[in-house]
Amino acid sequence: MNVLIIYAHPEPKSLNRTLKDFAVDVLEREGHSVKVSDLYAMNFKCALDGDDFLERVDKEKLVIPKEQMNAYDKGTLSQDITEEIDKIKWADLLIFQFPIWWSSYPAILKGWFDRVFVQGFVVNLYDGALYDKGLLSGKKALISVTAGSPRELYTRNGINGDIEVHLMTLWHTTLEFTGLENMDIFYIFNAAMLTEDKVKSELERYEKVLKSIS
Amino acid sequence: MNVLIIYAHPEPKSLNRTLKDFAVDVLEREGHSVKVSDLYAMNFKCALDGDDFLERVDKEKLVIPKEQMNAYDKGTLSQDITEEIDKIKWADLLIFQFPIWWSSYPAILKGWFDRVFVQGFVVNLYDGALYDKGLLSGKKALISVTAGSPRELYTRNGINGDIEVHLMTLWHTTLEFTGLENMDIFYIFNAAMLTEDKVKSELERYEKVLKSIS
Repeated sequence: MNVLIIYAHPEPKSLNRTLKDFAVDVLEREGHSVKVSDLYAMNFKCALDGDDFLERVDKEKLVIPKEQMNAYDKGTLSQDITEEIDKIKWADLLIFQFPIWWSSYPAILKGWFDRVFVQGFVVNLYDGALYDKGLLSGKKALISVTAGSPRELYTRNGINGDIEVHLMTLWHTTLEFTGLENMDIFYIFNAAMLTEDKVKSELERYEKVLKSIS
Repeated sequence: MNVLIIYAHPEPKSLNRTLKDFAVDVLEREGHSVKVSDLYAMNFKCALDGDDFLERVDKEKLVIPKEQMNAYDKGTLSQDITEEIDKIKWADLLIFQFPIWWSSYPAILKGWFDRVFVQGFVVNLYDGALYDKGLLSGKKALISVTAGSPRELYTRNGINGDIEVHLMTLWHTTLEFTGLENMDIFYIFNAAMLTEDKVKSELERYEKVLKSIS
């Protein structure tokens, strides 16, 4: 299976980096092919703007869906977007590895979705190609996240509310919206406080998930 | 009242820009003082990284809460962050004006939260200064958003689910988390399809909201 890991953390010594490297190792040992988009290392541009489109249908006013549809059709998206799209096309599984910041993903990963998940490639709203008919149907996704706080704060009755609900804008209205099928979200809570032993047992837990991929 | 508008849209002819400009006009006519953070015009840096901290407690490994607490205390956050913090301190009300992209805010605004809402300034997790005791208590927030799709897609039983739930990571676990008190969210749906007359009536509706501020 072809696996693309989209990884977003600024610190090379972070737990997220450990998880990303670990996933590459395990998956390659299992015989899968792996590519990584290390967004910080790539200095990936966050902010969607007119420069994303090498040619414009409308030079007077940027209407994003219109320019995305056109540029995807004509192959005139900026080079960095095209490279990400090619990796997604190649992949059978996308793994998103990131820390929860403000109950969501880091800005650099939000920018990756804003800029790479262009209309015409992931969905086509005019043709009703979304959700079950989304253009990424047949591919899978695995969200793997770390949260600094303990799980109790992120339950339905916890002070923050249910983290699964917070992440709904990712797993449902982004990933499922495009037809991707989600595996169960892999969470590591209390990430800031883990002992070395606990990290080891969390990696063992992650290894089982990674080995279940087929 | 002092009002800070945080505005995130790349297109000067967008409805979001119209709403931002309109709010400035109405609020100033009502006697309020207004500042604007136009994130695209400022080319605001999205991605939180080590450069946010002019001095580091730990140069070997970036542990974000630790560096944020320290840099806020010592006044060693990067200049662009300090400027935003000063504007927030000045403001009684924060207005967030943005388009819904992927059921959430644009990456550049996510970056503003990731980088500007530093621990020690907006909350102090060690002292339990969060939610009702959040360090921004006493200030208000108004989320003003546009969505390309009609409201029916964003209801509880709609295909996307309830937009108020999607935005919970903003109004609850970000804004309320810091002690901010939310006004009702101002929505404009079907934003891509509005006639000139409809824009006018939406602005009238927004004017009532803006005039209710006190």
